[in-house]
Amino acid sequence: MEAYFDNAATTRVYPEVQAVVDRMMTEDFGNPSSLHRVGIDAEQCVKEAQAAIARILRADPKEVYFTSGGTESNNWALFGTARAAKRRGKHIIISSIEHAAVASPARALEEMGFEVTRIGVDGQGYVDPQAVADAVREDTILVSMMAVNNEIGTIEPVKEIAELVKKKNPDTVMHVDAIQAFGKIPVRPGRSSIDLLSVSGHKIHGPKGTGILYIKEGTKIMPLIFGGGQQNDMRSGTDNVPGIAGLALAAQMVCGAMTENAMRMDHLRKLLADGAEEACGAVINGPELSDAAPHIINLSFPGIRSEVLLHALEDKGIYVSAGSACSSHRHSESATLTAIGLPKERIDSAVRFSFCEQNTPEQVIYAIGVLKELVPQLRRFTRR
Amino acid sequence: MEAYFDNAATTRVYPEVQAVVDRMMTEDFGNPSSLHRVGIDAEQCVKEAQAAIARILRADPKEVYFTSGGTESNNWALFGTARAAKRRGKHIIISSIEHAAVASPARALEEMGFEVTRIGVDGQGYVDPQAVADAVREDTILVSMMAVNNEIGTIEPVKEIAELVKKKNPDTVMHVDAIQAFGKIPVRPGRSSIDLLSVSGHKIHGPKGTGILYIKEGTKIMPLIFGGGQQNDMRSGTDNVPGIAGLALAAQMVCGAMTENAMRMDHLRKLLADGAEEACGAVINGPELSDAAPHIINLSFPGIRSEVLLHALEDKGIYVSAGSACSSHRHSESATLTAIGLPKERIDSAVRFSFCEQNTPEQVIYAIGVLKELVPQLRRFTRR
Repeated sequence: MEAYFDNAATTRVYPEVQAVVDRMMTEDFGNPSSLHRVGIDAEQCVKEAQAAIARILRADPKEVYFTSGGTESNNWALFGTARAAKRRGKHIIISSIEHAAVASPARALEEMGFEVTRIGVDGQGYVDPQAVADAVREDTILVSMMAVNNEIGTIEPVKEIAELVKKKNPDTVMHVDAIQAFGKIPVRPGRSSIDLLSVSGHKIHGPKGTGILYIKEGTKIMPLIFGGGQQNDMRSGTDNVPGIAGLALAAQMVCGAMTENAMRMDHLRKLLADGAEEACGAVINGPELSDAAPHIINLSFPGIRSEVLLHALEDKGIYVSAGSACSSHRHSESATLTAIGLPKERIDSAVRFSFCEQNTPEQVIYAIGVLKELVPQLRRFTRR
Repeated sequence: MEAYFDNAATTRVYPEVQAVVDRMMTEDFGNPSSLHRVGIDAEQCVKEAQAAIARILRADPKEVYFTSGGTESNNWALFGTARAAKRRGKHIIISSIEHAAVASPARALEEMGFEVTRIGVDGQGYVDPQAVADAVREDTILVSMMAVNNEIGTIEPVKEIAELVKKKNPDTVMHVDAIQAFGKIPVRPGRSSIDLLSVSGHKIHGPKGTGILYIKEGTKIMPLIFGGGQQNDMRSGTDNVPGIAGLALAAQMVCGAMTENAMRMDHLRKLLADGAEEACGAVINGPELSDAAPHIINLSFPGIRSEVLLHALEDKGIYVSAGSACSSHRHSESATLTAIGLPKERIDSAVRFSFCEQNTPEQVIYAIGVLKELVPQLRRFTRR
């Protein structure tokens, strides 16, 4: 049996999405910037995708911009805001558990002379909204907070944070990295104080190389990529029409079935948690399961190094993640697990299982059986 | 009959490329950053693509970086070099006929305090290499020149320019926008003084949303997009594996058949030029056809506005471009046609036909027949 439990790293494209992308590569292949019918047909596809995403986000279609992925969206949010706001201030606030796609641009901005405040989290990974508000100053140009943590699934109070931030300084731009949240919990920046919001296509069974940046009308932000003036002169480059159409369909599919999918994944997760705890003393890292995003569970298997377990599971066709798989083979310690104050042994033995609604109870039961067999062997092997 | 003569704007994806992209969306769908087999299989695809592109460019695989398209590649080249070289100088040189994906970032850099020198061209669109070398100063950090002009097909002497630039100032980084050149004429930066070179996927029957930046080893350039550290920490974001694999296959296909394809397109172009000249007094804008890139011809039909002719041709199933279709519906005058010193009437009546090897003599003969019928009618209509 095979069990892909690494859906927070990337997902298999839905067959329906695959069909749309496939068709558009050869049938509706025009350049939306062309003035003739082939171009106008392609442009129409982009407009429909924009409208579909806008409905989901409760936004206006012209607030929806397409990018090459979540990382570009986050980079655009940080660099674009910093460049547009240079004269108002140079202070930026993020949390201590942001994904590298926010943390790295923030570090680059620091090197360029910006000041970055990192707000710590509690033992479950929660940011205290008041702590963020207290850190906002007159020269704070940007607050960037993730909606769902990619390693432990903590759902951050981003709307509350946004409101408090705006109350303290209405000119501070509020960005939300919703890459792990979109399709899993409601994400509706259009009815909140959130100004910018990032979404990734490949985390929701959409095509790789696609993403969204929601930009509330009136937000002061500069482009990251300049050129032919596409997307209202805010994101140049020939629109990736097949990717955009595929992303919009995937978004509609995951958001349309969000409640059922969440129930399914939550069921699988509880099954795994109970089984792994009973069978081999696994402990949950992060928030209470019932409070967390439905697709992520982070478990420590005391006495076994994460990577050893990862490869042992891989041999049995079970695919999981050690730390954050998005961080390209880096073996540095997990920023999130360190930030929530776990002891080293818990961090070194932590494995992330992340589900999609296509995972089955049979896969989880199989995984529990494998863990039951593997974990005692690996523990013996580890003890020296 | 339908005749798509707008291949310099975008191309139809090759069926073979389509099949690869299609398959990888659901079969090899892993995240190359994951440590398990599904991720490693995906990583292997990226490595193979890198090696294939490197062979074509006569480069080392680690000099090949994947981007979201030609526009991102050009932006990266300009902003990345500017940021890395800030302390050495703030002077940049481009030509007066660069694509917006170079001209716009250059303008943005000007607004950030950099100085940009724009080298003019002659009546055929040629840049004088000596004029570029003369403009290079001690504080010149970057020269960016296109290999083939997108509107009139002029092949610029980029290798000669690169050599003269390096002779004058070895620290000046030489960037070549090869987006219209790649697959049409030999592009081998690996054996030249060129440091950076941009390629786009969708211009060569590859997937939209894909591109390459060649970065010669040792070139001082900063990333444009920061995050999880993918691609040797130079271009973060989960690799678009299906797109990358598709791009590599398209590159191998166009470059493998380059000579035959060029002969085919050149034949079609001469057929069109002769027919359009004889049938309705069309005149060629730009260089001698035998000197130009094989896929582009720019014709003026005196007395008829380009857009009127474009839409009349569209009604007959013939798709062409007025000015540069990459510039998102902008109705501003063509920078290239202005720069080569054409009178206003020639510019206003200019239409670009751009071919691929899938176009047929029958399509061209059909187009000549349509032009013969339409042009006299439109001329009567235009005279007031």
